[in-house]
Amino acid sequence: MLTFYNNHHAQHHGRGEIFRGAAVPCSEKPERAGLVLAELERRALGRIVTPQGVSLASLERVHTPRYLHFLRSAWSQWAALDPANAGRDALPSLWPAHGMRRDVEPDNFTARLGMYASDAGSALTAGTWIAAKTGADCAINAAHALRLGERASFALTRPPGHHAGADYFGGYCFLNNAALAAQHLLDDGASRVAIIDLDYHHGNGTQSIFYGRAEVLFVSIHADPRHEYPFYLGHADETGEHAGLGCNMNLPLAPGASAASWFAALETACYKLAGYAPEALVVSLGVDTFAGDPRSSFALQSDDFSRIGERLAHLGLPTVFVLEGGAAVPEIGVNVVNVLAGFDGAA
Amino acid sequence: MLTFYNNHHAQHHGRGEIFRGAAVPCSEKPERAGLVLAELERRALGRIVTPQGVSLASLERVHTPRYLHFLRSAWSQWAALDPANAGRDALPSLWPAHGMRRDVEPDNFTARLGMYASDAGSALTAGTWIAAKTGADCAINAAHALRLGERASFALTRPPGHHAGADYFGGYCFLNNAALAAQHLLDDGASRVAIIDLDYHHGNGTQSIFYGRAEVLFVSIHADPRHEYPFYLGHADETGEHAGLGCNMNLPLAPGASAASWFAALETACYKLAGYAPEALVVSLGVDTFAGDPRSSFALQSDDFSRIGERLAHLGLPTVFVLEGGAAVPEIGVNVVNVLAGFDGAA
Repeated sequence: MLTFYNNHHAQHHGRGEIFRGAAVPCSEKPERAGLVLAELERRALGRIVTPQGVSLASLERVHTPRYLHFLRSAWSQWAALDPANAGRDALPSLWPAHGMRRDVEPDNFTARLGMYASDAGSALTAGTWIAAKTGADCAINAAHALRLGERASFALTRPPGHHAGADYFGGYCFLNNAALAAQHLLDDGASRVAIIDLDYHHGNGTQSIFYGRAEVLFVSIHADPRHEYPFYLGHADETGEHAGLGCNMNLPLAPGASAASWFAALETACYKLAGYAPEALVVSLGVDTFAGDPRSSFALQSDDFSRIGERLAHLGLPTVFVLEGGAAVPEIGVNVVNVLAGFDGAA
Repeated sequence: MLTFYNNHHAQHHGRGEIFRGAAVPCSEKPERAGLVLAELERRALGRIVTPQGVSLASLERVHTPRYLHFLRSAWSQWAALDPANAGRDALPSLWPAHGMRRDVEPDNFTARLGMYASDAGSALTAGTWIAAKTGADCAINAAHALRLGERASFALTRPPGHHAGADYFGGYCFLNNAALAAQHLLDDGASRVAIIDLDYHHGNGTQSIFYGRAEVLFVSIHADPRHEYPFYLGHADETGEHAGLGCNMNLPLAPGASAASWFAALETACYKLAGYAPEALVVSLGVDTFAGDPRSSFALQSDDFSRIGERLAHLGLPTVFVLEGGAAVPEIGVNVVNVLAGFDGAA
């Protein structure tokens, strides 16, 4: 397992977020990646390297140029508005409701911020761009490593990516690392790539990016969006559209679903993946399905994560793992590395 | 001038709002209506009465049943979530970005709140529904008064309405009073009704409600949305769609526009109104175009508001005035009543 580590991730460190209507400390914090890195080093799973920087053109394969331009310049614009802004994160407070226009960019920064956001919980900070961009570097480097002959690679990064759409951030995500990895595999010659999203929360951004395309299969196991973030996407009847019809599978589980239910869904997902016959697999690896995760209602134990890795290995595909969610509980490192070691051990 | 006064308006009194990313006290406050009422009484412009309650079916002519159901029950749902919520207003913190679903209502209250909102600046409080509903009563009663023979009527109410869409609140607005008045005139027999929106901010909700319909002309003079709320609607190229093509006219003015520019736009608007030949007129009367309004960059003086009333009277149409925006500056009463008195005096 070759790991690409985002050595700039800690530059993204939000002060606070709006969660269910109230200001709370950010839950997506640097300790998360630190705990995973420490466990990875302790178990000596393979080389850990920093990524090469990729061009903006690579990011534009997934994200719109206008969004990328906004994201790169957002902090300096925010800071220029008011000297006091240097000491507070940018959070949106209004947005285009349905029927409102997105084709004209307002001059007003707050309005642009809302145009490119899907919630007020994803603090945009001075270091957000460098952290997110280096994360994208990790994901694309990890995908490229497969083409160079690695059987599996891991993008150890934060902020996560799977809630970010082609032109919006949200759910702590700014650039969609899994989508960038999948797109890079396609651009580098693969004709079909599959993504499996194991995070507790539906990967709405990834789904939306590939929803109309046949060359990427997206499968997600997650908590029912009627009850859990992202709420407005992730239902079972979302199966793709146009050329992508049939290339999207959501497996929402009721809150409190047992580990047995979760693994039954994993079997369904693997059956779908095998039928699609992709040339490579991207895993959006969230471990907030863990019983001890404060936002999870699922029941996976640390040993279960080893089984996940083993099961994915049996698909026999070159595989990129990308870190998504999972709170900074002490077990996050063990849970993530159990998946990777389970995969390696079953090789 | 027959005035319908919302005697329940003060029950809507938000504690705070998110404005340009930071929490500030609510600017849309009960004093606004109190100042207008006091000036109206002082100048004895006509009878001031409270409205009859209209049926929910009347509101469903403009708003969706699902949205109305949400709005009626929102406070009790919010309060039931947490005993502490009784002491804080409900403000959304996430929303459906473009491409997300609005056809499935989440069970989660915060998610539903965001589904029916367009910003985090419009505090939903214990008294919001009764205040907004009584305001809708005022607007519909005022429209009905025209059919009973009044030449002009005034809905003296808050919260305002013109930013509320068929199924979302925002910009301090929950029910679209101007749209409800116009729709009532149609339902009561008029074949064509015009709405002129004079608020500093574009009446995005009103526009969106009638955008595809030929029987309502909507004309708005406002600050360029590139710089001012509502940001995502109100551009000059929005002229209506389908049957309503040509029945929408936006006259955005640059920040800092002079009174002369404003009155030139009013002439353009009146020319369009006269050409449409409506049977009645609804005026979304915001007075935040006043030079002394803290959020305005326009330059109207109190005397200018008398001229507005005179100019509208020359259209020779039965007219409903509905109060929209304008900060609680001492002059708000004089400015509003100057419009009404100017209209009456020019009769």
